[in-house]
Amino acid sequence: MPTRFEQYERARKVLPGGVNSSTRYNRALQTPFYASRAEAGYVWDIEGRKFIDMCCAHGAALLGHAHPAINEAVQKARELGYLSVFETTYHEELAAKVCDYIPCSERVRFCSSGSEATLHLIRACRAFTGRKKIIRIEGHFHGYHELIYIGGQPPVEAFPDNRRHPYIESAGIPPEFAELIVPIPFNDPESLEAAVSEHGADTALLILEPVNYNTGCILPDPGYLELARRLTAEAGIVLFFDEVQSAFKKSRGGAQEDFGIVPDVCTIGKSLGGGFPLSAFCGRAEIMDLYMPVGNVQHSGTFNAHLVPVLGGLAFLSEIAKPYFYPRLRELEARFHGGMDRIIEEAALNMLVPHHGARFDFLLGRKTPARRYEHTFCHDKKLMLKIYKACWERGVYFHDYGGPPCHHGYCIQHTDRDIDEVLNVLEDVLRGCREELAVG
Amino acid sequence: MPTRFEQYERARKVLPGGVNSSTRYNRALQTPFYASRAEAGYVWDIEGRKFIDMCCAHGAALLGHAHPAINEAVQKARELGYLSVFETTYHEELAAKVCDYIPCSERVRFCSSGSEATLHLIRACRAFTGRKKIIRIEGHFHGYHELIYIGGQPPVEAFPDNRRHPYIESAGIPPEFAELIVPIPFNDPESLEAAVSEHGADTALLILEPVNYNTGCILPDPGYLELARRLTAEAGIVLFFDEVQSAFKKSRGGAQEDFGIVPDVCTIGKSLGGGFPLSAFCGRAEIMDLYMPVGNVQHSGTFNAHLVPVLGGLAFLSEIAKPYFYPRLRELEARFHGGMDRIIEEAALNMLVPHHGARFDFLLGRKTPARRYEHTFCHDKKLMLKIYKACWERGVYFHDYGGPPCHHGYCIQHTDRDIDEVLNVLEDVLRGCREELAVG
Repeated sequence: MPTRFEQYERARKVLPGGVNSSTRYNRALQTPFYASRAEAGYVWDIEGRKFIDMCCAHGAALLGHAHPAINEAVQKARELGYLSVFETTYHEELAAKVCDYIPCSERVRFCSSGSEATLHLIRACRAFTGRKKIIRIEGHFHGYHELIYIGGQPPVEAFPDNRRHPYIESAGIPPEFAELIVPIPFNDPESLEAAVSEHGADTALLILEPVNYNTGCILPDPGYLELARRLTAEAGIVLFFDEVQSAFKKSRGGAQEDFGIVPDVCTIGKSLGGGFPLSAFCGRAEIMDLYMPVGNVQHSGTFNAHLVPVLGGLAFLSEIAKPYFYPRLRELEARFHGGMDRIIEEAALNMLVPHHGARFDFLLGRKTPARRYEHTFCHDKKLMLKIYKACWERGVYFHDYGGPPCHHGYCIQHTDRDIDEVLNVLEDVLRGCREELAVG
Repeated sequence: MPTRFEQYERARKVLPGGVNSSTRYNRALQTPFYASRAEAGYVWDIEGRKFIDMCCAHGAALLGHAHPAINEAVQKARELGYLSVFETTYHEELAAKVCDYIPCSERVRFCSSGSEATLHLIRACRAFTGRKKIIRIEGHFHGYHELIYIGGQPPVEAFPDNRRHPYIESAGIPPEFAELIVPIPFNDPESLEAAVSEHGADTALLILEPVNYNTGCILPDPGYLELARRLTAEAGIVLFFDEVQSAFKKSRGGAQEDFGIVPDVCTIGKSLGGGFPLSAFCGRAEIMDLYMPVGNVQHSGTFNAHLVPVLGGLAFLSEIAKPYFYPRLRELEARFHGGMDRIIEEAALNMLVPHHGARFDFLLGRKTPARRYEHTFCHDKKLMLKIYKACWERGVYFHDYGGPPCHHGYCIQHTDRDIDEVLNVLEDVLRGCREELAVG
């Protein structure tokens, strides 16, 4: 097998940056993590080294790798001939389960990626309201496409201007698309009230991550989601929870169950397909039935809801419904965060590890939770890379996303011993950074 | 098992229209085709009836269903633990093969759907040129998203106005997006010259299907692609071939190989993953290297290039490179179209079956090939549905796409006997429509 540097050189000749996804380049390693195989909570790189996988497919592998239930699903798909593009009774069965688990879901549609899910659902929100604008929250992430990849995570230098001129997050997005975006800070009732008051009549949807895993794992302040629910209902704005990451991480019903606030529509993912490409969007029947062939909003695609991910999804939803599942996930959460709290306290480190269910962020440079995007600017990205690299050297893989503090997590197949080993490694590594992480 | 009507009623309660893709509702059947299993060139519905599958996953199943090479790929993915989100040496190997096969491909990126592929590639074209407008061809289809689902297939009543006010093909797409679209008729050199002359300085790309499978399988007139190549090169416009459908259907190199015209960039699909969700976009290195982490154009996504489709893709590209493959596909093509020509001639039917490689359209109401979108308005959609229904009753499945005349096809696992049976059924059915299909 080649070394990772050799593989990177070869891959760059045919794949821009040697990867199929920009965030797969890991700046801590100065190469992507090229993998050779995975099993349970472990992944092996192409040089044969074994790692405890704390990326877990960015949250898609909540079951871990090669889970027996997933192997069975694949075997079944094989026996059925994979049935690409055809609907089956399994599609309806999966849809019924989603409608059973997710509070806002009266109807659902499946697609492959989270980006596709937000793209298609925004379209229905616009058709439903007859309006165009989108109120969005700074720091929240909703997919890599022209409708919403604007104003979410501006670099620090562009941040002050973001609320007047929403920052376009990729080259090649025409500037007029930004005119439809209204960015506001998270957990700020006044800004939300002002945005609804100023733009409400033109606004189709308010979109947000109920847990902002994509920037420092920021939780909603008590009352904030309630306010969003009330103001959108009053103004005829669709309340859109992007639960691509939060769905299933703490409960079967997503953050809307965890916090008791039911949006009009939501997207779900990322673990939904048991590690296979599956996302979904769902919500109130009167919005969802706008999709063709019932209504006049298009949502179509050859590869929507391929049988392998659909059977993977059924296996996943069965597994998480077993009595052991969430109690065990909570054990892992308690063990990991109990350990982290102790490490941070004993070494007096200026950092915290905010979390919600099975995923968490490292946030360096502060001791109190961030409440909005700009509260994470204290995060020392360079030091974070040094920490990732040191963990990697000791056999623990944390992924670098290249931007603001982002999420990591464990899976149901991780053992107590795995968690203890991760804590041991982190304790050593963080103690080695005590000077950089000194309080004050 | 439920009947298809019972299944449709159940599915509609949880899936808008009982499907995950609007075009899966089949108006000829008045329900979707609910499948129970598939094998080689056959599919069984949930009531246990066997059909010769002339949909072949809209072209994705060029290998047919459950091909042994695909089963091997799945087995290998299973042994590796599926490795969701990680890059492997297989990704680079697949990319290298694409660059070997597809003439314009110096670099490639993989994603799941064809819609994702055009979405991400349009972004890079805009970044490369610093321009925003898109010249597109009427009748051509490039995916279900806001950037390009405009002005392609206007209904007949909206058609006359399409070139001044491009028709928005779905509710929920803001009208300002149409201002960036310049629709022109296919195979019309004057319109192309005029569009480049009027909009060239603002135009990022000219996008087209080199074979317009999505409307009547219209072929490019001799010289038309050459003109497109020359005019775009002179005006600094990116020439973008959408080969999601045409790739691999007649040759390893796509329509750009078939016609000998190399675009700057292209999308490929649909059969690329051997039936699994895989699409790609590729082109000149200087455009492709605009993607992050090399350049400043975003393309990212957890589920891009999942290992199952990547190994499916390697199996597919190996299979089509075997010496038997394209000669056998040409045998099927000759057998089917030889038979169709005879049927049409003997019964003096006013129709034709335009084709390019392994896919074809039925075009009713004319004897000479259509050269552009409006030439297909003669197509009797109601009669077409009657024909599909009658074939379905006799065990041959043609898919109804709900719009203009669209594509069907066979796969490498279809036998001569399958083709003969399809011809027998079509002969009977079409003879029964002789009055409706009388010439003059």
